[in-house]
Amino acid sequence: MLRVTPTFESFIKKTWNVSASLPVDFSIRYSTNVFGSNNDDLLEFGNSPRRLVIFDRNVFDLHGETAKSYFESRKIDAVFHSIECSEERKDSDNLFSVLRAMETFGLLRRSEPVIAVGGGVLLDIVGFAASIYRRGVPYIRVPTTLLGLVDASVGAKTGINHFDRRNRLGTYYPPIVSYLDKSFVRSQSQIEISNGLAEIFKLALIKDAELFRLLEQNADTLVREKFQYGAVPVRVINLAITGMVEELAPNMWEHNLERCVDFGHSFSPLIEMMALPELSHGEAVCIDCIYSSYIAWKRGLIERGELDRIVTTARLLLLPVYHRFFGDPEIVSAALADTMKHRNGKQNLPLPLGIGSHVFCNDLTPEEIIWTSHQVAQELLS
Amino acid sequence: MLRVTPTFESFIKKTWNVSASLPVDFSIRYSTNVFGSNNDDLLEFGNSPRRLVIFDRNVFDLHGETAKSYFESRKIDAVFHSIECSEERKDSDNLFSVLRAMETFGLLRRSEPVIAVGGGVLLDIVGFAASIYRRGVPYIRVPTTLLGLVDASVGAKTGINHFDRRNRLGTYYPPIVSYLDKSFVRSQSQIEISNGLAEIFKLALIKDAELFRLLEQNADTLVREKFQYGAVPVRVINLAITGMVEELAPNMWEHNLERCVDFGHSFSPLIEMMALPELSHGEAVCIDCIYSSYIAWKRGLIERGELDRIVTTARLLLLPVYHRFFGDPEIVSAALADTMKHRNGKQNLPLPLGIGSHVFCNDLTPEEIIWTSHQVAQELLS
Repeated sequence: MLRVTPTFESFIKKTWNVSASLPVDFSIRYSTNVFGSNNDDLLEFGNSPRRLVIFDRNVFDLHGETAKSYFESRKIDAVFHSIECSEERKDSDNLFSVLRAMETFGLLRRSEPVIAVGGGVLLDIVGFAASIYRRGVPYIRVPTTLLGLVDASVGAKTGINHFDRRNRLGTYYPPIVSYLDKSFVRSQSQIEISNGLAEIFKLALIKDAELFRLLEQNADTLVREKFQYGAVPVRVINLAITGMVEELAPNMWEHNLERCVDFGHSFSPLIEMMALPELSHGEAVCIDCIYSSYIAWKRGLIERGELDRIVTTARLLLLPVYHRFFGDPEIVSAALADTMKHRNGKQNLPLPLGIGSHVFCNDLTPEEIIWTSHQVAQELLS
Repeated sequence: MLRVTPTFESFIKKTWNVSASLPVDFSIRYSTNVFGSNNDDLLEFGNSPRRLVIFDRNVFDLHGETAKSYFESRKIDAVFHSIECSEERKDSDNLFSVLRAMETFGLLRRSEPVIAVGGGVLLDIVGFAASIYRRGVPYIRVPTTLLGLVDASVGAKTGINHFDRRNRLGTYYPPIVSYLDKSFVRSQSQIEISNGLAEIFKLALIKDAELFRLLEQNADTLVREKFQYGAVPVRVINLAITGMVEELAPNMWEHNLERCVDFGHSFSPLIEMMALPELSHGEAVCIDCIYSSYIAWKRGLIERGELDRIVTTARLLLLPVYHRFFGDPEIVSAALADTMKHRNGKQNLPLPLGIGSHVFCNDLTPEEIIWTSHQVAQELLS
């Protein structure tokens, strides 16, 4: 990049090499009662008297008035925009609706961080919009679901579903900060709690035996009390986030495509999309975990007793362990082929090695898929 | 990110700090006769027997057959996708058309770099698509216009126009490599050559007195011979790219919003969109340069003789120096207000300081806009 003055003749061979490095820093923090009158966390970043706040519509129905009072009492001119969120609506229409809200608000490029309040779908859509509006504006994540707390709050991924494929479009674009307020989880339904537990279950199974035992021993209480009371839910969330951070931070842009957090996401992405709205994300992930555990058992990577504990724990978490599409080897093969494109042609299939550890497999055969689909259908279809 | 085991009570105060750094390396190189039978540059990256090649339709009409032969002779299964390119068509429809081509091709995530062949509009659209498809796939830029060579080939910016605003959506996502083949420029019309010269003129005026003199003394030949013969065009391109690299590389993600390369882009973005298709990008930039030079003259930053040289050189490059919208202080004020949002509320207005240097101004007054609009209308409207 130094300016040199070679002879004219040599110019035509010229090459410019450009090197740069983008530093990324963000944090994930607890914030108890984030819209509470004594809590200034949400205004920690930015220095404008205005804010754009994007809500999941269901969350706005429950907490919109509290949020309005929060900003009013601080003399912040807040504009609220709500979108209908679901896996089927994680689409370009919702993306452009958020972008239009940014345009209408007249968002400044740096000093007015957009505040995203909702579950994983909302956080992924707003993060994607923030990453492409004016080539990137800052945003803050406020997850309101268990899945959002332990999964979407960590890491840099944003995205929408497109071409009938899960997260086909998106970016790596972390927020400035994620604020974790688990009191939101109180208003989730049991099925939504189970949905969030699926990602914790996944992580425990391939990475954290203590976390697995906590789930195994406290499944009923965790589901019933919705993570509201006592020390166990906090320990579960902490171990889950710590595990996610350990895996995601050193591989933020996924330069390494061997990712153990992809466990449960090998066959499920296509099948979840095919089954919509029948399976939630967590349900599809859990069924994939069980299917992969059967492969691991067949390969002698886990014992039958461990396989049984895995299936039992999933059921205690009120998660499904089987879906007919997993019983069809052709669908499973097609799903793996699609995922392999995302893993640049490799299987990179994480499989449990006992409970709490994993290996990567790149030699799964069509025969093993036929065997496994047959086996899960026979054992788990009931 | 270390796993610690504090007591349960302290957990609720936990914060996770995530730090990472994204290294970016790419190069800009000359490649003479890029589709020539002896030139393997285009296949330097990637290791698949397939390639997806996205063309500007006009370029495909001229060079499509040559490109087909090129890949055929190398046993590469190339799929070609052409899009109609213009500033009005730099839109989400074209973006999604490119994304669909990627999906239909079944693009692998890493080893099949998409090859983009066309002018600035094509390169910006394909770069944007590459940055969001599967959260980013590699791509290669092959600029085919003078503007593309000296501007879109450098830097990391991608984007589309949206909400009637120029480049409102986009990302920072550099290609693996840009290959510069100036023989493409031969088939450009005079008005397109002038369009490219505008960005060179801009850079020369605020950064490079030698480059300005080269333009001033060779304007007629450069326009007429379309950069094909002799040493001067190569020197001009080299100085222009070197200057751009010097400015863009240390500020790839625009963390610093004082950018001298924004000269000519202070008032023009909105006005160019308003005037579409009347003004090309280069024409709008040039008129903005002239307008800004009048402000600089009024402020005593350049002499009358320098102002006259600036206006004369623009005319020698067959570029317009005035448009009626610049004669309207209300439009100019609205355009600046819009640009200020992109500069986070500041003017950060680059103004020439003599020829070949610049200062930033943050105190332009409404009165100065009224005076300048009046002055340019009076002197230049003819």
